[in-house]
Amino acid sequence: MARVDTVALTVAEAARLVRSRKLSPVELVEASLRRVEALDRRLRAFITVLGDQAMAEARKAEAEIGAGNYKGPLHGIPISLKDLFYTRGVLTTAGTGAFDDFVPNYDATVTAKLKEAGAIVIGKNNLHELAVGGTGENPFFGNGQNPWKEGYVPGGSSSGSAIAVATGMGLASMGSDTGGSIRIPASFSGVVGHKPTYGLVSRYGVFALSWTLDHVGPLTKTVEDAAIVLTAVAGYDARDSGSAQVRRRNYVRSLRGDVKGLRLGIPLDPFFEVLDKEVRQAVSQAVRVMRGMGCTTRRVSLPTAAYSQEIGLAISWAETASIYESELRARFHRFSRAVQDQILVGLSMPSSVYVKAQMARAVAQREFHRALEQVDLIVMPTTAVPAFPIGSKQVQLGGESVEARFLPARLTRPSNQTGYPALSVPCGFTREGLPVGLQIIGRPFEDGLVLRLGHAYQQATEWHKRNQQL
Amino acid sequence: MARVDTVALTVAEAARLVRSRKLSPVELVEASLRRVEALDRRLRAFITVLGDQAMAEARKAEAEIGAGNYKGPLHGIPISLKDLFYTRGVLTTAGTGAFDDFVPNYDATVTAKLKEAGAIVIGKNNLHELAVGGTGENPFFGNGQNPWKEGYVPGGSSSGSAIAVATGMGLASMGSDTGGSIRIPASFSGVVGHKPTYGLVSRYGVFALSWTLDHVGPLTKTVEDAAIVLTAVAGYDARDSGSAQVRRRNYVRSLRGDVKGLRLGIPLDPFFEVLDKEVRQAVSQAVRVMRGMGCTTRRVSLPTAAYSQEIGLAISWAETASIYESELRARFHRFSRAVQDQILVGLSMPSSVYVKAQMARAVAQREFHRALEQVDLIVMPTTAVPAFPIGSKQVQLGGESVEARFLPARLTRPSNQTGYPALSVPCGFTREGLPVGLQIIGRPFEDGLVLRLGHAYQQATEWHKRNQQL
Repeated sequence: MARVDTVALTVAEAARLVRSRKLSPVELVEASLRRVEALDRRLRAFITVLGDQAMAEARKAEAEIGAGNYKGPLHGIPISLKDLFYTRGVLTTAGTGAFDDFVPNYDATVTAKLKEAGAIVIGKNNLHELAVGGTGENPFFGNGQNPWKEGYVPGGSSSGSAIAVATGMGLASMGSDTGGSIRIPASFSGVVGHKPTYGLVSRYGVFALSWTLDHVGPLTKTVEDAAIVLTAVAGYDARDSGSAQVRRRNYVRSLRGDVKGLRLGIPLDPFFEVLDKEVRQAVSQAVRVMRGMGCTTRRVSLPTAAYSQEIGLAISWAETASIYESELRARFHRFSRAVQDQILVGLSMPSSVYVKAQMARAVAQREFHRALEQVDLIVMPTTAVPAFPIGSKQVQLGGESVEARFLPARLTRPSNQTGYPALSVPCGFTREGLPVGLQIIGRPFEDGLVLRLGHAYQQATEWHKRNQQL
Repeated sequence: MARVDTVALTVAEAARLVRSRKLSPVELVEASLRRVEALDRRLRAFITVLGDQAMAEARKAEAEIGAGNYKGPLHGIPISLKDLFYTRGVLTTAGTGAFDDFVPNYDATVTAKLKEAGAIVIGKNNLHELAVGGTGENPFFGNGQNPWKEGYVPGGSSSGSAIAVATGMGLASMGSDTGGSIRIPASFSGVVGHKPTYGLVSRYGVFALSWTLDHVGPLTKTVEDAAIVLTAVAGYDARDSGSAQVRRRNYVRSLRGDVKGLRLGIPLDPFFEVLDKEVRQAVSQAVRVMRGMGCTTRRVSLPTAAYSQEIGLAISWAETASIYESELRARFHRFSRAVQDQILVGLSMPSSVYVKAQMARAVAQREFHRALEQVDLIVMPTTAVPAFPIGSKQVQLGGESVEARFLPARLTRPSNQTGYPALSVPCGFTREGLPVGLQIIGRPFEDGLVLRLGHAYQQATEWHKRNQQL
């Protein structure tokens, strides 16, 4: 076959070709590594590239499939992992100077599951330092670049994951999401990102930030691909105290059902109205497309979402501080000033502030619970603004200047606090050519329904194919 | 009929008589109030007695039942409530001077459910101030007295509930349990106390201490009675953020199954071996009785239980402080010195201590989870010692002198941290005549199985009838 185009190819398409032996894992991995070589000096999606190791595994996969031992849709598929996931014998930095020499001696549960499914890890993705920011700027491993516009942030913290997927440096990546870190880069960089229900995917062997808010999940080109990856990585793990005992599902099968008649909730509170104009237009248009697919819409009220930044920062800063307290002491100067400050703030926070934040969180959870009694899914923008220039301190929003570092997570944090599943799907582009993301939020463990709507939307639109020009 | 003996009568027996109109609610309530009058000046089980109101309700219940409108096994049954449960228009003090004038304008969910079931509230029970201690001593409303031995603590914090039930001042009571506050007085005062699974019974309208550790549940003479009350009060309540959406069950029906073949876990860690000699003997004998009933036993390991005091105090003190921070400011001198100090410690606790306690709690949860994969239920003493003299600062345990205020909750705290159901059943008496409690712990939402074993044990033994001499 002709030169393999990893920018166009989805996991589902590649899997069909690999399974029928029309495409070899060797060609796929080679093509992915060529993209890394061509682009990554500029885009900074990778901290570690596993060239030889990945090629060896590709040859092994080719042989296995040739011998009739096909493992399933990830067999022979090149993927990458945010550099927060432990990989046995492979540097795992968490994006910080403090761990730039850390080589774990075991795999994260997700790493092991992906390898078992036959996926080939081609590298470890760059991220916002210690995953504590939403832009993807990184003083140690270089600022991730938005693949659509030079000098713009890719979104974070799973910045490298989104860049890699958008540009064909591998076909899928795993990210993590404490306040929006999967969905924000998906939105800013024009790919699909799914934060699964809290407890659905194990976090064992993933650098922790906040064990009540941390989630891990896939970044892919299509919702179908997200469903393929989620099916491989979901499942109970006793080594993650937040892991839920729910039966395993095939999320690809979940895509098949009807979306006609689904009731979609549109948040009505003023907080949700403060949006960039082009974001508002793209999301309104997406809602019209969904109405055209037979969905109905009604307004729902989520007033406590307006406080989700205060709630989320109190919880995650306190939890991060308690996790890294001794590390901060031991390696103070190997963290950036921003992370030092954040951990110090967390350490000096009284427990009553943390406890009150958890109580406020419970109120927010109740509101989402009630809203999702009236509707099947909630739709809103993933981010209130598109990507902004690297180095921005302030960004304009609704006629006001707001802090750039907190802005990306404005609309994603609530779903970390509820633990409900939330998907970001590309739904348009600004006149400047920057992607816009649509967020779909569902009831706990109804990830299948969330993905179904996203998939149906992608069947009806072409936004997710725009990356082929990258 | 002859004078009604509320000391001997169980809820189940009384209900049969009431239903068949052999016994009137008026006689029952009168007999209960006579016991209060005769004993409570000494025992201090009540803060408020609702004589006239209860008699009026008894006459109403009598009329309803006479007219054929029988509501079920709590109809016309005199009960009491720990003075932490809101009662509309009736003083609710939380056992503290700070709230000695508080009259709520609504009922707790549990209060409302019991009234709907036809139960008659004869009064509000004394408790350890603000439910923050395990002895039942109270500087504002008098020290509860152990009904078996003058000058000994009844156990707390639901002290008045246990005293009232043991002595026939009403047939059942509702208590609350943050570190053992239902099970400790059940053990020390010789009655049954059940801490249901976290989330099974609504805490709406109950003074909160620690919303991640607080539970409410019944104190009764028999496990069958606990099942009757639990059936009436269990169920989802959107107004309690910890409430679980599980389907309603009839726990009386759960008692009927077989206990033969049940696998019982006996904790093997050194922490669980530190026991008063007579407590150890009584519990060993109870385990032999259960083996005689066809249960098998094996040892299970719960090492983190040894840290449950440190974990429990960090969590509950921080949460209590965050709840009562402004109240402490507004009414500082109306709290006792002990409660002032505890709230001040909680307010000055760094969030990292609280967060670490929650992480340690997750470890303990996993250990219980694993143990309950190997066995169906865990059995152990409820308290490591029997009741001790009022005013004790130090108590002997395992050859060492330990702080009296923390000792009662030594073996009960772990189940607050897991949220798993835990029952205390009388299983013997010391030579001094003080009761010993056996604790039965089950998997989440398997309250029915916990109660079933307790019920079968009571069918095979007579300890729960000993109170008829009181």
